Amino acid sequence: MTTTENIKEPRITLLGAGPGDPELITLKGIKALATADVVLYDALVNEELLNYAPEAAIKVYVGKRSGDHSYSQDAVNKLMIDYALNYGHVVRLKGGDPFVFGRGFEELDFAGSYSLPVQVIPGISSSIGVPGLQHIPVTHRGLSESFWVVTGATASGKVSNDLYEAARSKATVVVLMGLHKLAEIAEIFKKEGKNRLPVAIIQSGSTRDEKVAIGTVDTIAGIAEENKITSPALMVFGEVVSLHPKFQPIREFYEIIDQE
Amino acid sequence: MTTTENIKEPRITLLGAGPGDPELITLKGIKALATADVVLYDALVNEELLNYAPEAAIKVYVGKRSGDHSYSQDAVNKLMIDYALNYGHVVRLKGGDPFVFGRGFEELDFAGSYSLPVQVIPGISSSIGVPGLQHIPVTHRGLSESFWVVTGATASGKVSNDLYEAARSKATVVVLMGLHKLAEIAEIFKKEGKNRLPVAIIQSGSTRDEKVAIGTVDTIAGIAEENKITSPALMVFGEVVSLHPKFQPIREFYEIIDQE
Repeated sequence: MTTTENIKEPRITLLGAGPGDPELITLKGIKALATADVVLYDALVNEELLNYAPEAAIKVYVGKRSGDHSYSQDAVNKLMIDYALNYGHVVRLKGGDPFVFGRGFEELDFAGSYSLPVQVIPGISSSIGVPGLQHIPVTHRGLSESFWVVTGATASGKVSNDLYEAARSKATVVVLMGLHKLAEIAEIFKKEGKNRLPVAIIQSGSTRDEKVAIGTVDTIAGIAEENKITSPALMVFGEVVSLHPKFQPIREFYEIIDQE
Repeated sequence: MTTTENIKEPRITLLGAGPGDPELITLKGIKALATADVVLYDALVNEELLNYAPEAAIKVYVGKRSGDHSYSQDAVNKLMIDYALNYGHVVRLKGGDPFVFGRGFEELDFAGSYSLPVQVIPGISSSIGVPGLQHIPVTHRGLSESFWVVTGATASGKVSNDLYEAARSKATVVVLMGLHKLAEIAEIFKKEGKNRLPVAIIQSGSTRDEKVAIGTVDTIAGIAEENKITSPALMVFGEVVSLHPKFQPIREFYEIIDQE
């Protein structure tokens, strides 16, 4: 019944699902899902979004974005092409924005090698949106003229070299993934003498499980542990974090120490 | 008729409109607009979005985000409070994301000083979404482990100091605003010996007026001029720009030069 129209043009939509709240998808994204024949979705994607796809559409969970994959990237690439050739419109639904550490371009490139048309629909990247939902602006006059987004978990498993440079800069530094390396990352900032730089760790931003821990480079690893912060989480290092109400007692504490 | 219900709770929603395509607003954003009593909107906001607000809602254009303002930031802040106290729900509709060089926190802070509740709804920032729509990923394995977003137009009118650091880094550097400083910005990258670093300039990303110019640090100012690129535009400096099909002839040109 659904496979009689085998004239369907194969095509791919790389779609950013946003940080987790299903209402943080774009209207364009909803419209793309409504015409999907197949949806391939990641672990960090809210499954409620699948309701925007037709009931008859095939929905395939293809696993985590980092760490152990249910499917390897190669397998996802091939699956995407297979489904497009056999069913038509494949929506590749990815957490956040497809091009922020999402390996989106590898998928786009692979589809291109089969001459399949690819449309990109950006998503709200957690790097900006999740701090924002906590009323932490990535830029703010007098505090930060730029922001630098780095991954805490590179392909090699090591902390990115860019993070060493970022710790030296005056930018707001947003680290996506790599919460298990928090202590190691804090050390990098300590080596730059930034012991009192404000830090926020935000777990599961924009979802019901959202949790925030606020501290400084010196204290954040302990505070995150006390508050039982778990992955997925992002870290914000920068003076802009001092704007969060939870930073007020920390500021007062340091003022008392400095007076003694 | 519309002013009889004067029991309305004053409140503010800081809402990101996205880069220009009206379909790149979030579902949450559309729902907020639907309950607006007043919408205060910026120059870079697509006016089609106002159709999501009730017909009876007051819609006020409050001018440009940078350069000469129709209203000063102080005036916008006061207007926002006045409208909230007199009409209820004010949606402050800002281009891109409210916290990416949007002075959103100043508005949030001002509303807070009147004890008015503020909800933040992130938007697609052009810094990520606009390159993405051109199939330029801000991160890509082997080419870029991070991206750094800087403004080309600081409050003082000078190029941000952060841009000098960014030019030294291995990050993809995205410069928002400041197209008139393109030659000056390219010089900063030249001083770091990055004459052949790929550069993209994207005008009016996601809209019908979208235009892209691709070159290198050495050639981009001339190419942007030839292609009559005008503001609003953003600049992407980084190896990821080499993934754009328009970069292929440039790569071949350099290969020929190097063989001679």
